[in-house]
Amino acid sequence: MMNPITSEPLDRGLFPLDDWGLVESRFEPELQGRMESLFTVGNGYLGMRGNLDEGRDGVTYGTFINGFHETWPIRHPEEAFGFARVGQTIVNVVDAKVIRLYVDDQPFVLSEVEVLHHTRRLDFRDGVLIREAVWRTPTGKVITVRTRRMIPLTERHLAVVEYEVESDADASLLISSQLVNRQDGVDEEGTARSLDDESFDPRKAETLENRVLQPKLKVRDGGRILLGYRTTNSELGLVCGVDHRIETENDWDEAHQLEDDIAKQIYRVRAKAGQPVRIVKTVAYHTSDDVSIRELRDRCNRTLDRIGRLRLDELYEAQHAWLEEFWRCSDVEIEGQPGIQQAVRWNLFQVAQATARTDGEGIAAKGVSGDGYGGHYFWDAEIYVLPFLTYTLPQVARNALRFRQKMLEPARHRAAELNQRGALFPWRTINGLESSAYYAAGTAQYHIDADITYALMQYVRATGDLDFLARGAIDILVETARLWADLGFWRSNGSPRFHIHGVTGPDEYTTVVNDNLYTNVMARANLRAAAQAVSALEDRDPEAYDRMRQRLDLDPDELVDWVAAADAMHIPYDERLGIHPQDAQFLDKELWDLENTPDLKRPLLMHYHPLVIYRFQVLKQADVVLASFLHGQDFTQQQKRNNFEYYDALTTGDSSLSAVVQSIIAAEVGYQTLASHYFLSALYVDLADLHGNTADGIHVASTGGVWSALAMGFGGMRDHGGDITFDPRLPADWRSLTFRVTLHGTRVRVRLTADTIRFEVEHGDKAELAVRGEYVEVTAGNPVSVALDDQGPVLHGTPSTRDLLGGRRADGSVITASIPTISNGDRNEAD
Amino acid sequence: MMNPITSEPLDRGLFPLDDWGLVESRFEPELQGRMESLFTVGNGYLGMRGNLDEGRDGVTYGTFINGFHETWPIRHPEEAFGFARVGQTIVNVVDAKVIRLYVDDQPFVLSEVEVLHHTRRLDFRDGVLIREAVWRTPTGKVITVRTRRMIPLTERHLAVVEYEVESDADASLLISSQLVNRQDGVDEEGTARSLDDESFDPRKAETLENRVLQPKLKVRDGGRILLGYRTTNSELGLVCGVDHRIETENDWDEAHQLEDDIAKQIYRVRAKAGQPVRIVKTVAYHTSDDVSIRELRDRCNRTLDRIGRLRLDELYEAQHAWLEEFWRCSDVEIEGQPGIQQAVRWNLFQVAQATARTDGEGIAAKGVSGDGYGGHYFWDAEIYVLPFLTYTLPQVARNALRFRQKMLEPARHRAAELNQRGALFPWRTINGLESSAYYAAGTAQYHIDADITYALMQYVRATGDLDFLARGAIDILVETARLWADLGFWRSNGSPRFHIHGVTGPDEYTTVVNDNLYTNVMARANLRAAAQAVSALEDRDPEAYDRMRQRLDLDPDELVDWVAAADAMHIPYDERLGIHPQDAQFLDKELWDLENTPDLKRPLLMHYHPLVIYRFQVLKQADVVLASFLHGQDFTQQQKRNNFEYYDALTTGDSSLSAVVQSIIAAEVGYQTLASHYFLSALYVDLADLHGNTADGIHVASTGGVWSALAMGFGGMRDHGGDITFDPRLPADWRSLTFRVTLHGTRVRVRLTADTIRFEVEHGDKAELAVRGEYVEVTAGNPVSVALDDQGPVLHGTPSTRDLLGGRRADGSVITASIPTISNGDRNEAD
Repeated sequence: MMNPITSEPLDRGLFPLDDWGLVESRFEPELQGRMESLFTVGNGYLGMRGNLDEGRDGVTYGTFINGFHETWPIRHPEEAFGFARVGQTIVNVVDAKVIRLYVDDQPFVLSEVEVLHHTRRLDFRDGVLIREAVWRTPTGKVITVRTRRMIPLTERHLAVVEYEVESDADASLLISSQLVNRQDGVDEEGTARSLDDESFDPRKAETLENRVLQPKLKVRDGGRILLGYRTTNSELGLVCGVDHRIETENDWDEAHQLEDDIAKQIYRVRAKAGQPVRIVKTVAYHTSDDVSIRELRDRCNRTLDRIGRLRLDELYEAQHAWLEEFWRCSDVEIEGQPGIQQAVRWNLFQVAQATARTDGEGIAAKGVSGDGYGGHYFWDAEIYVLPFLTYTLPQVARNALRFRQKMLEPARHRAAELNQRGALFPWRTINGLESSAYYAAGTAQYHIDADITYALMQYVRATGDLDFLARGAIDILVETARLWADLGFWRSNGSPRFHIHGVTGPDEYTTVVNDNLYTNVMARANLRAAAQAVSALEDRDPEAYDRMRQRLDLDPDELVDWVAAADAMHIPYDERLGIHPQDAQFLDKELWDLENTPDLKRPLLMHYHPLVIYRFQVLKQADVVLASFLHGQDFTQQQKRNNFEYYDALTTGDSSLSAVVQSIIAAEVGYQTLASHYFLSALYVDLADLHGNTADGIHVASTGGVWSALAMGFGGMRDHGGDITFDPRLPADWRSLTFRVTLHGTRVRVRLTADTIRFEVEHGDKAELAVRGEYVEVTAGNPVSVALDDQGPVLHGTPSTRDLLGGRRADGSVITASIPTISNGDRNEAD
Repeated sequence: MMNPITSEPLDRGLFPLDDWGLVESRFEPELQGRMESLFTVGNGYLGMRGNLDEGRDGVTYGTFINGFHETWPIRHPEEAFGFARVGQTIVNVVDAKVIRLYVDDQPFVLSEVEVLHHTRRLDFRDGVLIREAVWRTPTGKVITVRTRRMIPLTERHLAVVEYEVESDADASLLISSQLVNRQDGVDEEGTARSLDDESFDPRKAETLENRVLQPKLKVRDGGRILLGYRTTNSELGLVCGVDHRIETENDWDEAHQLEDDIAKQIYRVRAKAGQPVRIVKTVAYHTSDDVSIRELRDRCNRTLDRIGRLRLDELYEAQHAWLEEFWRCSDVEIEGQPGIQQAVRWNLFQVAQATARTDGEGIAAKGVSGDGYGGHYFWDAEIYVLPFLTYTLPQVARNALRFRQKMLEPARHRAAELNQRGALFPWRTINGLESSAYYAAGTAQYHIDADITYALMQYVRATGDLDFLARGAIDILVETARLWADLGFWRSNGSPRFHIHGVTGPDEYTTVVNDNLYTNVMARANLRAAAQAVSALEDRDPEAYDRMRQRLDLDPDELVDWVAAADAMHIPYDERLGIHPQDAQFLDKELWDLENTPDLKRPLLMHYHPLVIYRFQVLKQADVVLASFLHGQDFTQQQKRNNFEYYDALTTGDSSLSAVVQSIIAAEVGYQTLASHYFLSALYVDLADLHGNTADGIHVASTGGVWSALAMGFGGMRDHGGDITFDPRLPADWRSLTFRVTLHGTRVRVRLTADTIRFEVEHGDKAELAVRGEYVEVTAGNPVSVALDDQGPVLHGTPSTRDLLGGRRADGSVITASIPTISNGDRNEAD
């Protein structure tokens, strides 16, 4: 079991309560890695980590553009046919955040000056990061610095940085606004990053060894600077342009510097006591894989020219308006839990920052907040982030699904490389090609195909957007169904069954197995959805159907095969334990004695060879439990409970994706306290850095999953088969839970209290729902309340590995439990 | 099935018959890669590929020293805990073979001149490579070149090259004897080798990217040249010294050149018609990881000084004498099959060349004939090469086993890295550390531990050399037994059984499985052998026992655990098919339709992703069949036949280790014709380049396996449990088969004819044997003949995949058979 946290973990002295913002009340040097991620501003296209403006005292000075990546040849120490050959890594682009301040020639470096006051606040309604620093110089002058940083959610290519300084005595101020290219394996001080670093963490990005950004352009024109680059291998172009404006009553003059990797706009200000100086820095980034640097330069100029004609306030107002609409559609309110309320909003705000302007790009594991996982897109976008988008921001969900549609051709290519028909989406990718060099926990996760179709069908059901299918998204269904039909095979022993062998489920602590339950359940739904969607299209739009048939060379007999395979899909089930084995061999394995595994040996993946982990019944995340959430209609309540109890005891939660799902199903089957604890463990993944790697970026899937835990876990919402049903589970210490869902264009406010669930149309006409089997229709102006007798079953305690060893095995069989005991960390280091 | 060859494949025009040599009758440019391997001379320490003396027209100009390697950091595209981090690759050392000839300033390049005659012959009794080239210059002069190359088997550090030229008309000859360092990713013309080469072959060596040999010494003193180097990362030292002598009646003078990577001794000869010039080049190589280059220089000088005082004839005579004794102990004679006879001797001669002077080093997969597989040592030394050495050259076998004993400490370290007690020998290594970066077909092959103990116990039983165990080799038994006891676990369902999960057997087309039959059978024997050997040592030599106990901190209770685990070892068996499944899940897999797989898709590993191959019942080599050979006493005759028939139909033979074992068991169970065909497929692996990669070096395991196929397959010899038994299977078209085995110091000649098997002591006193259950004692001077009624059962035809689909499945179950059908080679290239 994962030992979820049992109470709010934040130091409220450092992070004071705030309904609509995240506040850092003082400067903690050792927490800056985490803070940089937490205080990221971004819009899904562009992201700037919460580095201090002066570009000092930081861990990762990061500015990321979704999908802007470098490629590199993967060198497998031992090659095999079909291994991924091209690595992809998001590029930390030229940094336009930096503004350095020198007072009487002494640099303002937070860790070196006498700080009187330092706070930062990320405002969830205004969408700005505000900082205030007050410090005293060695000569006793008190300097106040106020900065504001914003990446508009209404604009794709823009960032705005304001920097204001005031001294309480006359002082010479030098303000150096910079564009810095910190790329190329070289840190700011010019030191090459060590590649022989003994430590490893597979969750980090691959370090790029060679110069990535080749300088192609440097221009200065007044206060405007433009730097342009092209990536060495992937040949993507980037131009960053900056406009400067100074506002002050003081005397000043300016100087400039322009080099390939650095450009400076320097203001020398003879500041009078109490007379502030304000620098406004407007930044535009444009990128492309198919236009010239000159064209990108022109685009930057046009963006800057256009923005230059606006008042700054107009931008702030537009940002506020966008977020007002966002919260109108997406807010979740929790009465009587101000700490949780704040954390929930921080999480939802992160989803907005990670997705708002992805437009045609994917949603990376870290959004635009860091380079963890190389900036890659994974399945977790579809399973953890899309539900929130589908039910609250369907247009953004549609964009995310269009990204997969665009990537269908490389997915076909990848399937062919793996000797399969249809399409196989890459396990991790930026450009659509498989970038997972470790197939066992990568390419073998065929389930990504079914995850994408799951999200697609969820979107179609929630929105009724059949047009999206007809316009080509149906190709995803057809090609993935083809993959499953070809990947599996028939085995007959009496009645023929359809089996899928040699795959890895979401739980990466067991790989390359036969008949992974999650995969088979999801593939079955994929096959059926494809057959149904094709038939429905034929009925509804024969022309679109004919075009699709020709485009995909579809034989109607294929549908027969898909349905046959789905109907005969082998679903492993153990009668004696009353559980679904994770895969065909899972129950044969030795049990890992998780309760006696010391914390310093976690996460297991950092302390044990994969071969060791794979040999045991031990999970990174419980994919059977996930299946019973996504396809609850395929499981009885007793099976869900049995599965939860069995796997929860074996689940380390080493994956940040684990807590959300454990929370949802714990709530459903009755472990209410445990559900709350798992919820906290998801809610605070990053805020409290529960996995120790928030510095590498926000866990975007978890931020999206928080909404699922609220609406689906506690709210009890499901959409199996298209009907939206509610079977709520309000935590005992919450007065109420309110959230919104948009169904076929109608936004419904759902308010859950201890004895009632209430539905109210906030926008649109009407919606049809069900509460515990009772049909409910809610129309505009006519809220409906449904009385609740209880909040579902209540079970106490926590499932334990010990239970698995004792009476649970009805067949009397006993499997030993152990921990690989030899401590080897030190020996390994000694290599 | 693997489609074994059914008749002798050699072009006898090119390779004329020769009882005691391999002859190349003409120069075939496109075959030079293979020829370089076939005509290698070596002694197990030093090897020189059969490059033409002038260092032109070649594929790989190779000179290798066993164990002389470079290390490099493995960069896993995705890291995990415990992955091997240090790659090891044998180094192609400075080349002392090169002698270039210019006639009237025109270079002698075989592919460019008018060749009148060109032959080479590798003599198996003299141990020399002789070449004769006659060619005509553009001005009509006929030049005759005769060369002789030898690496003494009696010396460790020496090579001798003789070069004689004669012109039929007066001519100006320039003979440039060279030392060339072709290292460092740069070919002879200075072109960097392409690292982005699209092609891949996992059987080749890793290409080293950076300069490997750092120049440390260059000295010339008269006709003596010394070049010294140290490897960049592994810091091994190497000095190569050369002495030159010229013998001619012609006028001559000399010149010199001495640089870091090239040194030349140049003779300018004003040759008279018919007056020959002879250059004698004596070469010494010394290497070390712990002495200075100066010391290595001194060692080279001492070797050259000592050899310089000998007549050349003395070296040739010593070589002949060594080989005379070798053939006395090891020759195999086959009456009436001159082609097979020649090929057999070539194979056995290769074993001598790969092992004679390994002394403390291992036996690499390619011996010293090439850099295939990176010059690494694998399990195949123990299972395929050691039987021949144990039964004919026990001292060499002992040296090979001592190599493993020396490597016990890194093997302990590796076990700890994999969270296991005891020792785990690396799957592939030079320096004792695991170098397999792909654990699924590498580290997971835990069976290597049991393979080593198998070879150790076979050696001890054959020689009675208990002293070897007492002096420390017993530590191997104890530490490997500990690994097995810790790796496996108990599962009880009624009676408790011992299971071993998550391992890979020798068949690399199925990886990381539970209860691999081969592994479990071998581990069981390993556990028992350890317990027995420890008990025997306690009885026989209490002092050595006490020292061992202290040294290994051995608790006598451990022996109880070992025996308990061995006795309860789970041996998968399928009652309905009457076969042993290769592993717990093997029979659940889809069948690969091998009969309908086109040749151009073979070997499978070059055309299908591992995930695809792993999903099917399809084998690289049949490890159940191998187990039934190594531990025949654990299988009934019916099981052996059933297993052979089942797996033979599924075996691609993509491993060069396959044919030997299929031949042995085919012979035992009665597929006599098939046994002969498999034998031919093993015999000609390299001579006919049956796997297409002989250019990378000789398949040493197969050369050793040829002897096993002869003595154990056709000779029917087994040593299960210490008794040497014979149950012969003489091929119908062989008049007789004669081989030797040395048992406890007594060498017995075994002669098998259609109706008799005859034993005669050639050296020593007596030996005890059994023929088909009948005890036989043979003493010096008293040969024994045993009459034979037959040569075992006779079955016709070839097992077929089709059989597996039809009536074979007694339970009526049907598994589909298919081939992954989408041709993907082209798409892959298009990346």
